[in-house]
Amino acid sequence: MEFVHESLAQRVVFATGNAAGAAAHEIENLGYRKVMLVASEREDELAAPIAAAVPVVERFNEVVMHVPVDVAARACSVAESAGADVLLSIGGGSTTGLAKAIALRTGLPIVAVPTTYAGSEATNVWGLTENGVKTTGIDPKVLPVSIIYDAKLLTSLPSDMTVASGLNAMAHCVDSLWGPRVDPIDQALAQEGIRALSSGLLQVSTNNASTDAAEQTLYGAYLAAVSFASAGSGMHHKICHVLGGMFDLPHAQTHAVVLPHVLAFNAPSAPEAERRIAEALSASSATGGLRTLRARLEAPKALKDYGMPEAGIARAVGPIRAAIPANNPTPVDSENITALLRAAWEGDLP
Amino acid sequence: MEFVHESLAQRVVFATGNAAGAAAHEIENLGYRKVMLVASEREDELAAPIAAAVPVVERFNEVVMHVPVDVAARACSVAESAGADVLLSIGGGSTTGLAKAIALRTGLPIVAVPTTYAGSEATNVWGLTENGVKTTGIDPKVLPVSIIYDAKLLTSLPSDMTVASGLNAMAHCVDSLWGPRVDPIDQALAQEGIRALSSGLLQVSTNNASTDAAEQTLYGAYLAAVSFASAGSGMHHKICHVLGGMFDLPHAQTHAVVLPHVLAFNAPSAPEAERRIAEALSASSATGGLRTLRARLEAPKALKDYGMPEAGIARAVGPIRAAIPANNPTPVDSENITALLRAAWEGDLP
Repeated sequence: MEFVHESLAQRVVFATGNAAGAAAHEIENLGYRKVMLVASEREDELAAPIAAAVPVVERFNEVVMHVPVDVAARACSVAESAGADVLLSIGGGSTTGLAKAIALRTGLPIVAVPTTYAGSEATNVWGLTENGVKTTGIDPKVLPVSIIYDAKLLTSLPSDMTVASGLNAMAHCVDSLWGPRVDPIDQALAQEGIRALSSGLLQVSTNNASTDAAEQTLYGAYLAAVSFASAGSGMHHKICHVLGGMFDLPHAQTHAVVLPHVLAFNAPSAPEAERRIAEALSASSATGGLRTLRARLEAPKALKDYGMPEAGIARAVGPIRAAIPANNPTPVDSENITALLRAAWEGDLP
Repeated sequence: MEFVHESLAQRVVFATGNAAGAAAHEIENLGYRKVMLVASEREDELAAPIAAAVPVVERFNEVVMHVPVDVAARACSVAESAGADVLLSIGGGSTTGLAKAIALRTGLPIVAVPTTYAGSEATNVWGLTENGVKTTGIDPKVLPVSIIYDAKLLTSLPSDMTVASGLNAMAHCVDSLWGPRVDPIDQALAQEGIRALSSGLLQVSTNNASTDAAEQTLYGAYLAAVSFASAGSGMHHKICHVLGGMFDLPHAQTHAVVLPHVLAFNAPSAPEAERRIAEALSASSATGGLRTLRARLEAPKALKDYGMPEAGIARAVGPIRAAIPANNPTPVDSENITALLRAAWEGDLP
């Protein structure tokens, strides 16, 4: 047992049905008086009642995926001329990402109200895109001082989107268990995340509008972000990153297809991960537990269904081998990576 | 699911056999250059090699239980005249407590190297004693910026002391599960703590000098402190506090005796705690799991063995009822508290 775990200072508020009250309380309690609201126009309906409860001095709604640097620069100018003393971001990953970019430059604190299961609000990772190249980094300034989770804001998401996001969060948890910087605290949080996500997603699949389902999924997505940010990308995310980049595959579906294959590949060499996943899924084995869950959620099965060409298998093996962290539980070689990719491509479930 | 969880900023370093190297790395990395060492004379043998690895400008060794205000004031003057920019505390709860008192007044950061399982290094709680009255409070300044856990420093503790401290930490975990401010994150950390403590203590009981046993116990004690500080004192600690104060009972033994009774009292009304404890102890029930563990550790059984008079049962009921938090899972009344105290006094295990 040898590790460094950095726990980050953050207030996490679960306030189902009361985002407005909780946001007002956090902002007042932390002593802020001039709020710059960051929310896309699309998110305006969810944002309006929350914004009405706090002292907004400025609004910025130009939210673009991957946070282009010019948008971030404009947002910083707006924040500065308004004399804002806090950013209130209400939205998904792109909105939180923009608020982080403003915080990075201006030092303004963020209060984040997530409306998706992206999890960015729980990490100190920022990203900016310039000329199509995305730069990411870590800075304590970009970690929101306070997150307000209101499950009611998520019950209007379509259930297939919730399932896809939830399985993506599940993949963060599973991959955390053998991430390059993993420690037992990450593992404990990831295990709790898997338990919550499994419980939430099973409920979502039968009742899309269930607040309890959204609460569990949101709680699991928060834990997924915390554990993954600390442990770092493992084999699963390296594979999905390479495949996504090479073949322009849809993000969530790629994760959903690849996860059971990576789990079956690593679990025999990772007894601690095996034990934790099985326990979290109340199953006798990790692989079996995930199989049952995926079947009940009717999760995507084959990469060939999402546009990956068969010849892509051979092309992806090299870059994938190069990307997988050295501490991966099962040693990788061209043969076993090829077999894994072929099974994921065909949809031969482990 | 409605809660506020405050996660605190702290670096947690597990570095078995390498406290000196880790302390030097942390202090240099954080940019500190003038170390004031806080360690009792009794702890000097453990402290010397660590102190030798860092730029010590001053030492303070007047460590007294419960941190008397005059000692704290002297320590502050010494730190100020030395121009120290960081406190390095090496020792048990009293040593950490003194460093916290200095930090409270001076704002100096603390790097803590614990040599017992007390857990104070993982909380933002301080305590000071004046004229026999202890005042406690919460302040972010007193949370060590960095903890260095070196299990080798704990392998010289006598095994009965380790078992007593470990069961005390176990009681913190269990009581966290229904503490007045408990949230699911506290519960997940407490569950992980119970698992680690159980594994560590079982190893300690067969091989006192095992480094692996000390690592697991230390890790569990850290989690116990984090979850307990967040969730607050539940029924168990209120009972032990009243009994300890009224009858001057030994701390660790009182906790060890009372814990199974409180667990049996609350578990039927606390299904989440029941599930988590059973899972953490790999047992089919929480009460059964704790019974098995206690038997293997030959834990203390009866309050009458530690000096509590039989007539004390009736005297303690009122103050205990008044102290137990309103959110306790099983509602308390004079009758059920009397029965619990009688069983704990007699040693009738549940």
